[in-house]
Amino acid sequence: MISHRMIKMTEGGSAIRAMFEEGNRLAALYGRENVYDFSLGNPNIPAPEKIRSEILSIAGNTDPMALHGYMPNAGYPFVRKAVAESLNSRFGGAFGEDNIIMTVGAAGGLNIVLKTLLNPGDEVLTFAPYFLEYGNYVSNFDGVLKAVPAPAERGFQPDAEALFAAVTEKTKAVIINNPNNPTGVVYSEDTVRALAAALGRAQEKFGNPIYIIADEPYRELCYDGAAVPWLPGFYDNTIVCYSWSKSLSLPGERIGYVAISPKAEDAGLIFSAAVIANRILGFVNAPALQQRLVAACLEEKTDVAAYDANRRALYNGLTQAGFQCVYPSGAFYMWVKTPEEDRAFTQRAKKYNILLVPGSSFACPGYVRIAYCVSHDMIIRSLPAFRKLAEEYGLTK
Amino acid sequence: MISHRMIKMTEGGSAIRAMFEEGNRLAALYGRENVYDFSLGNPNIPAPEKIRSEILSIAGNTDPMALHGYMPNAGYPFVRKAVAESLNSRFGGAFGEDNIIMTVGAAGGLNIVLKTLLNPGDEVLTFAPYFLEYGNYVSNFDGVLKAVPAPAERGFQPDAEALFAAVTEKTKAVIINNPNNPTGVVYSEDTVRALAAALGRAQEKFGNPIYIIADEPYRELCYDGAAVPWLPGFYDNTIVCYSWSKSLSLPGERIGYVAISPKAEDAGLIFSAAVIANRILGFVNAPALQQRLVAACLEEKTDVAAYDANRRALYNGLTQAGFQCVYPSGAFYMWVKTPEEDRAFTQRAKKYNILLVPGSSFACPGYVRIAYCVSHDMIIRSLPAFRKLAEEYGLTK
Repeated sequence: MISHRMIKMTEGGSAIRAMFEEGNRLAALYGRENVYDFSLGNPNIPAPEKIRSEILSIAGNTDPMALHGYMPNAGYPFVRKAVAESLNSRFGGAFGEDNIIMTVGAAGGLNIVLKTLLNPGDEVLTFAPYFLEYGNYVSNFDGVLKAVPAPAERGFQPDAEALFAAVTEKTKAVIINNPNNPTGVVYSEDTVRALAAALGRAQEKFGNPIYIIADEPYRELCYDGAAVPWLPGFYDNTIVCYSWSKSLSLPGERIGYVAISPKAEDAGLIFSAAVIANRILGFVNAPALQQRLVAACLEEKTDVAAYDANRRALYNGLTQAGFQCVYPSGAFYMWVKTPEEDRAFTQRAKKYNILLVPGSSFACPGYVRIAYCVSHDMIIRSLPAFRKLAEEYGLTK
Repeated sequence: MISHRMIKMTEGGSAIRAMFEEGNRLAALYGRENVYDFSLGNPNIPAPEKIRSEILSIAGNTDPMALHGYMPNAGYPFVRKAVAESLNSRFGGAFGEDNIIMTVGAAGGLNIVLKTLLNPGDEVLTFAPYFLEYGNYVSNFDGVLKAVPAPAERGFQPDAEALFAAVTEKTKAVIINNPNNPTGVVYSEDTVRALAAALGRAQEKFGNPIYIIADEPYRELCYDGAAVPWLPGFYDNTIVCYSWSKSLSLPGERIGYVAISPKAEDAGLIFSAAVIANRILGFVNAPALQQRLVAACLEEKTDVAAYDANRRALYNGLTQAGFQCVYPSGAFYMWVKTPEEDRAFTQRAKKYNILLVPGSSFACPGYVRIAYCVSHDMIIRSLPAFRKLAEEYGLTK
């Protein structure tokens, strides 16, 4: 009796969420410490202490009417101004408060941007492997998501020529997720420059603007000096969707922003429409308290040392066991080649209480994603289990 | 270059929001104290002191990982259980945590419920006058909103026979907003009983479930002993959308719930699908901190005395000036007949720095809405301005 689309979705479910629940089931059976749940990108580094102190200060010192009342649907002007100035000081550019919309996380931001841009049948491109939720976000607005492979042989860096070839007259946008979930690869400046050039040519070819939607919740999570190129510096028609979920370990709080490049075609119209989309999709505005909170914490640095230690330990342990892994430069995911079909592999891994997400869930079979935003201790404890798993396949040298 | 639908919407804008901005403009010109802005339903009673103390306690005493991390998309099980138990103790019934989804306000709740239920072309009924945003929410999912008049001669109580006559084989749901925005009318138990009976007959006639979506953010705001009938007690196929925006004065914080009656057809499937809708529309989950906050404040009583004092003062002042008003039993809106076309009337009211929302914005021309969730002092100061306005029309006796 419910919507046909939703019936299908209840049958499909989310592989990642299913794993999360499987983890809880196994933990109840074997004890939490004996289950190696690498399924969910839930940061395990606590939010910085300043988050707590600022909540106490905001709640303690702000008039409740000002604190909890409505504000413009785009968010508090002072918060948007602070975000714009922070972007300008970090990356250059001329963002103003009317280029910034505070959103219910990056997921909320992506949805309002897609609602703003898409007519039914419009195409959105992205690079596989990709966060499968993009397909749902695009189809919410009757768009069609098409994936262009970011090939393993290029170290999962996207190929600009393949992107150019995939553009049609229906292409409205390209979602670029950097650092990439699930591979942990940081798309390099060379890659970004080539993608921007290819899209510039495609815009000329078809005579339409094609927007880059930069999905960047992992921007601050980079290792070994890697840096994520700032897309608005390379391509005018760019809209950035950001979230503090990962950088400040606030995923449950649902706070992010959309930044529309002031150089984008129709930047003002996109802003107006996206603010309306924010309202009519039912977000209304990003949570008030969290807006004030992030404005007070714009200078907080993400502590990536713990993720980095996990990354090294896991990479060393897995490669020594015989697995082939991408050595990630960003995010907190490791992307590992599977010695058999990836869903079968994740099933077999469960025998050792190891929970992974199959590459099929990212439109890239033959791999698994390991979310290493877990305790270092769990990484160390899991390595013998991974070794046994490798032995089943005769991988161990 | 943006979506055709959204281009149209940027042209239309929101009359209520436009008034809000007009209020700021006039305040800058004449001083805030000389502008009588009755346009926005932004509660002016501060949140109870317990809200502040609970935020301090939650932030001060909760492990940041537990506090800010992901939880199930439906919300914390302990919060959902507390909400369910509160409903059961207040209204009877057998709600469990799997009937409750924590949402980004009632607007978020309405959107996930409509996404769950609607196929393209499905019809949703509601009673005019109504909150015009319903039309946007329904068209987000390619449904069609149809309004059944709640006639002035019935004191704006809906007519069950008119509802029955409006149902077609495409009718999937009926949105019932009680107390009503904009009239302030509380739909009585007689009304609700008749509506439930009529819908029951309609279900039999067409052989399909027809869901009542009860939009109840104003439930706690009632006067003179009026009470809002609990719809799940009268009609099994009921889904309640609630928000603490008005009852606890937290509209900016975006926290509410969806309660699916355990007696509803396909209750379990609706729950599963609505949780997915919550995820894929980009809400992901209701803000974590606010979930804990409302769970700790379920017993807080709404202080309606201040709104009641405003209601009486405004009603007396307006009727003495010669206006015809509905004496409201709920919410914080007064519904006033206009002596000329309602948009012309609101324009004329601006001459006296009075900001109102025309009835046309609620699909009911010939009236204006006065949001009296403002300071009592402003009500008193505005009465001479209203009197002058009445004199222009020769209303004053």
